[in-house]
Amino acid sequence: MAPVLEPAMTSLAERIQQGDLRALARAATAVENRRPEALALMQELFPLTGRATLIGVTGAPGAGKSTLVDQLARVARAEGRSVGIVAVDPTSPFSGGAILGDRIRMQAHHADPGVFIRSMATRGSLGGLAAATTDLALLLDAAGRDTILVETVGVGQDEVDIARLADVTLVMLVPGMGDDVQAIKAGIMEIADVFVINKADRPGADSLERELQAMLGIMPPRDGWRPPIVRVVATEGKGAEEVLAAARRYQEAAGKRTRRAGLWAARLREMFRERLLERLPPAELEAAAEDVAARRKDPYSVINEWMERI
Amino acid sequence: MAPVLEPAMTSLAERIQQGDLRALARAATAVENRRPEALALMQELFPLTGRATLIGVTGAPGAGKSTLVDQLARVARAEGRSVGIVAVDPTSPFSGGAILGDRIRMQAHHADPGVFIRSMATRGSLGGLAAATTDLALLLDAAGRDTILVETVGVGQDEVDIARLADVTLVMLVPGMGDDVQAIKAGIMEIADVFVINKADRPGADSLERELQAMLGIMPPRDGWRPPIVRVVATEGKGAEEVLAAARRYQEAAGKRTRRAGLWAARLREMFRERLLERLPPAELEAAAEDVAARRKDPYSVINEWMERI
Repeated sequence: MAPVLEPAMTSLAERIQQGDLRALARAATAVENRRPEALALMQELFPLTGRATLIGVTGAPGAGKSTLVDQLARVARAEGRSVGIVAVDPTSPFSGGAILGDRIRMQAHHADPGVFIRSMATRGSLGGLAAATTDLALLLDAAGRDTILVETVGVGQDEVDIARLADVTLVMLVPGMGDDVQAIKAGIMEIADVFVINKADRPGADSLERELQAMLGIMPPRDGWRPPIVRVVATEGKGAEEVLAAARRYQEAAGKRTRRAGLWAARLREMFRERLLERLPPAELEAAAEDVAARRKDPYSVINEWMERI
Repeated sequence: MAPVLEPAMTSLAERIQQGDLRALARAATAVENRRPEALALMQELFPLTGRATLIGVTGAPGAGKSTLVDQLARVARAEGRSVGIVAVDPTSPFSGGAILGDRIRMQAHHADPGVFIRSMATRGSLGGLAAATTDLALLLDAAGRDTILVETVGVGQDEVDIARLADVTLVMLVPGMGDDVQAIKAGIMEIADVFVINKADRPGADSLERELQAMLGIMPPRDGWRPPIVRVVATEGKGAEEVLAAARRYQEAAGKRTRRAGLWAARLREMFRERLLERLPPAELEAAAEDVAARRKDPYSVINEWMERI
């Protein structure tokens, strides 16, 4: 658990533990870009992790995820807790992706060293997003951040994987987005520990809550927990305290240890998958793709050949 | 390319080529459930593929994807072409996922043997969704379907992967969904061959088109192609012909062959990844996850051990 490291690396890890922001920023960039030295660093830091509360915030685009994350950070800071924010949604104002968005407001936190913000949006289609996000959250955990907020758009397998990695997963809904409940997909229903109805002052919020209650009523409770529904108006900061309280109630109710073993199974699977793909030389992949496109080979035989070789 | 197969299997492949719907349905189920016999079948059918036009339709939930797919199928049928529909979005009425949705209307096609509909929604979080979807599209291609429509919700890496597998990718947008362009993420912008603005009779459609034009103006054309913007009112069937025409113009402009080699690189990568993960015994994964959750081991060392073993 304590591999021999060169002095420069050891000191980076030590500086991170001591709360050095520049060291943390440098390490975050190395982790984000999957650089080889990040691996040794994460191995060293890993025993320090497991203390933070990792909260995943997911929901459709326009549900108000960044605004809620912003408010949760504000509440946590007012309690004297340190915060880390990881934005995985490329449309998030945290990621600079929102065009008409409220990017300026988010920058209020930038002046506060108690809030460390990092966006994973730039990874784009490089793959390994879930693994990189996990490592970044672990890094923030090792750096002593009390509350880590991960914002991810809640549609798609990768995003469901990321949301599942959190200790507590919040699923956000808003009234009046097309067919309302159409945005609630089965996969998302299953991963929600707490439901948050945003823009709860709008017409349609009551009926959305009733529909949600009805759906929850027919689902069996998971490990004795029935996800509560918290109503908020995120732009006004209303309800953020209640959301944080509900997240903490969940953490107490769900034996942290049991849940985390399940999380680690998902994490290890994702890490393994990412490493395995590195074994495939790009030139070989391209040549095979040419052959298949021209129907000189079939793709199933190509995969069989590759599997036999490793 | 013509492996020796047992008679029953050969006859299933032959019946599929001859347009036998029951044989096609049986094969589709085998492919969807990743059954071993599906592999041999797909190997046999592969040389017959590459004739259909595979159109991917993607966009946020509520953008009207299923309604457009429904209309595109109607237009293609009126031209005398056979159609295959694969719905990957679990909220799609084709998948039975829409709760308040217009599932009934979609069932009009069920009486028409010229439209074969299959939903991949049930796979949920089983993984390998992109690979299974690709195989299903290839199966429909081998079965002689002229036009294959794949509907997938356009947020998340898996969905972007699926959209990329198509010959032509349509990206749907609607005015007035929150911050409009917020729904257009960088990844989606890059994969669009044709943009479709749905609900084009609504206020906000003009400004959405202007914003889109502005974004397209600053992007360099990809392989000499600048994605056109087609306005539709999908619920009234307005604009569906124009969408199909734009998709075909793209296919003529983009050298089919070159693009397809790129597609196959993505497909092979996904297939390889799926097969590699099968090498990891679930019991071993669980034991390792317990160790990591209890901090007896670090995850990076676990992955290193697994990599050394294979």
